[in-house]
Amino acid sequence: MTSARKDPVKLRISDVARHAGVSAATVSRVMNGNPSVDPALAERVQAAAAELGYSASPLARSLALGKTQTVAVLVPDLGNPTFQATLRMFSRTAAGDGYHVLVADSAEVAGDEAALALQARRRTDGILLVAPRMPDDELAALLPQLSPVVLVNRPAGLGAPVVAADYAEGIRQLIAHLRELGHRRILYLAGVTGSASHARRLAAIADARHAHPELEILEAACGTGFADGAAAADEVTRSGATAVLAYNDLVAMGLLSALHERGVTVPADVSVVGFDDIPFAPYTTPPLTTVAVPAEEMGALAWTALRRLLDTQEEAAPVVLAPALALRGSTAAPPRR
Amino acid sequence: MTSARKDPVKLRISDVARHAGVSAATVSRVMNGNPSVDPALAERVQAAAAELGYSASPLARSLALGKTQTVAVLVPDLGNPTFQATLRMFSRTAAGDGYHVLVADSAEVAGDEAALALQARRRTDGILLVAPRMPDDELAALLPQLSPVVLVNRPAGLGAPVVAADYAEGIRQLIAHLRELGHRRILYLAGVTGSASHARRLAAIADARHAHPELEILEAACGTGFADGAAAADEVTRSGATAVLAYNDLVAMGLLSALHERGVTVPADVSVVGFDDIPFAPYTTPPLTTVAVPAEEMGALAWTALRRLLDTQEEAAPVVLAPALALRGSTAAPPRR
Repeated sequence: MTSARKDPVKLRISDVARHAGVSAATVSRVMNGNPSVDPALAERVQAAAAELGYSASPLARSLALGKTQTVAVLVPDLGNPTFQATLRMFSRTAAGDGYHVLVADSAEVAGDEAALALQARRRTDGILLVAPRMPDDELAALLPQLSPVVLVNRPAGLGAPVVAADYAEGIRQLIAHLRELGHRRILYLAGVTGSASHARRLAAIADARHAHPELEILEAACGTGFADGAAAADEVTRSGATAVLAYNDLVAMGLLSALHERGVTVPADVSVVGFDDIPFAPYTTPPLTTVAVPAEEMGALAWTALRRLLDTQEEAAPVVLAPALALRGSTAAPPRR
Repeated sequence: MTSARKDPVKLRISDVARHAGVSAATVSRVMNGNPSVDPALAERVQAAAAELGYSASPLARSLALGKTQTVAVLVPDLGNPTFQATLRMFSRTAAGDGYHVLVADSAEVAGDEAALALQARRRTDGILLVAPRMPDDELAALLPQLSPVVLVNRPAGLGAPVVAADYAEGIRQLIAHLRELGHRRILYLAGVTGSASHARRLAAIADARHAHPELEILEAACGTGFADGAAAADEVTRSGATAVLAYNDLVAMGLLSALHERGVTVPADVSVVGFDDIPFAPYTTPPLTTVAVPAEEMGALAWTALRRLLDTQEEAAPVVLAPALALRGSTAAPPRR
């Protein structure tokens, strides 16, 4: 079977020019909204274009104006609910301003982030970079080639506007909550070594150890997904910890499931907290205590920052959003021993 | 603060032509891989380009070749795990072939699907359409303007290649499973009226009623998310059904959580099945019995079909994938009354 390929752009600018009795250059100026054209003439050209059903080829317009009305987003994994929420709101607010969004997924491969970002940027007017694996110095060196660029969850001062969640503040809130409940031995299920958000959580944990010497905060290597959390269940029971600080909600959910299978009751036997507050967190059994990272708001603010760079070349001040503690059923006082 | 905007494309084709001592047209032919150029000459041009650090502007290349090396994907909601899995694998396989992906999110607004699809298609070489809300006749009328286009979860014969999951077969498998366990009164929590996948589930349920007159299959209106499933818990207990067929896994998970809160035990008091087998389904309490829609495989096959249209203008035969029953802990024999 062969499908008929029809080109949606059939008419040329010269057809409109002939129909309106003006030059092709005039048609071009009208189509690109050049204010130097006489309004009556512009109206005549637009009427002629409408009659013929002509609309400018987006590609030709892009080349003429040097603008694509498209921006790129690089995400490490389209499957992660937190990145999705940011991407979705970025995409919807950008669409509201008439911009299209090109999405590149680095599949959590650190080495691909730079190449993918450059490729995507060259086809678009600007880029939003969610690249948690790239080291700060490498990222800083790359930024001039990506400009205009906005960064998600990176430190300010690298040379681009930043929209970030305050991970350290989230960790502080969770540890304070567990401490107030009476927990003294807490196990942190750590994420992937080398990622920027992992490093910031570790720094916050080091601060908590310093501030609260009565706390014993253990660490165990873990991944970032459901299966990683489920696989950590035995480590949790062996550790003797009365509370677990999971790297994120996915890890916490996998852990809840595996603890339930082993007959360990949450929160009576052990408390579990997550990080992010993904949409499913209120529906786990028991519902998950976590900190809410405002991922959608970050997406909207990232678009505002990128739009400002595009329109005025002005760099918006860094935005750091504090996560809010979401207290649910997965935490309680430690069991009496 | 003002950021330095550096244009990654500084050199022009004429600079390369001058450096290589050839015409700009020859450079253009070499850059576009035109086989009519003498290999030795092509090598000289490439060496000159490499020396200068020139690489063709993707936009200029696109206009010259009439190709963007970009394809569009329209999805109804970036937040739905099933669409994500399809998009992610489509995007990764397309990237493997050197194609970029422009993503448009219709935010589940049926009226926006056509306009967004046309807009996205005009900036790209082809489009993958996941548009569950658009009626078949409207979609068929739109297809010539979108070509080359591949459809997800639509009937074959509308005028474009289709990659679909066999929803009816999934419903059949779930009902057969519940019937074999001894359930006779089953409640179907229906999705959004007017969507194509809703209609196919309803048709399969009508078939089941016909084939198994001993079954009483009730229906209740519901939505498609966690909160909709949670809100249906009272309806479930009121209905006297011993098993619930949830519209999808998200609905099933919301329901599991709300039933647990009410002290209703799954599966001892009531069995619950989902649809899709999203990554979290094995980790619910109890783990969710569902049918696995091969969403990632659909994404890869959709790219294969679109690539074939792009390269050969040949329409791939429709692909309909059968979902596979995933038996887990949320189903058991009905309680003895």
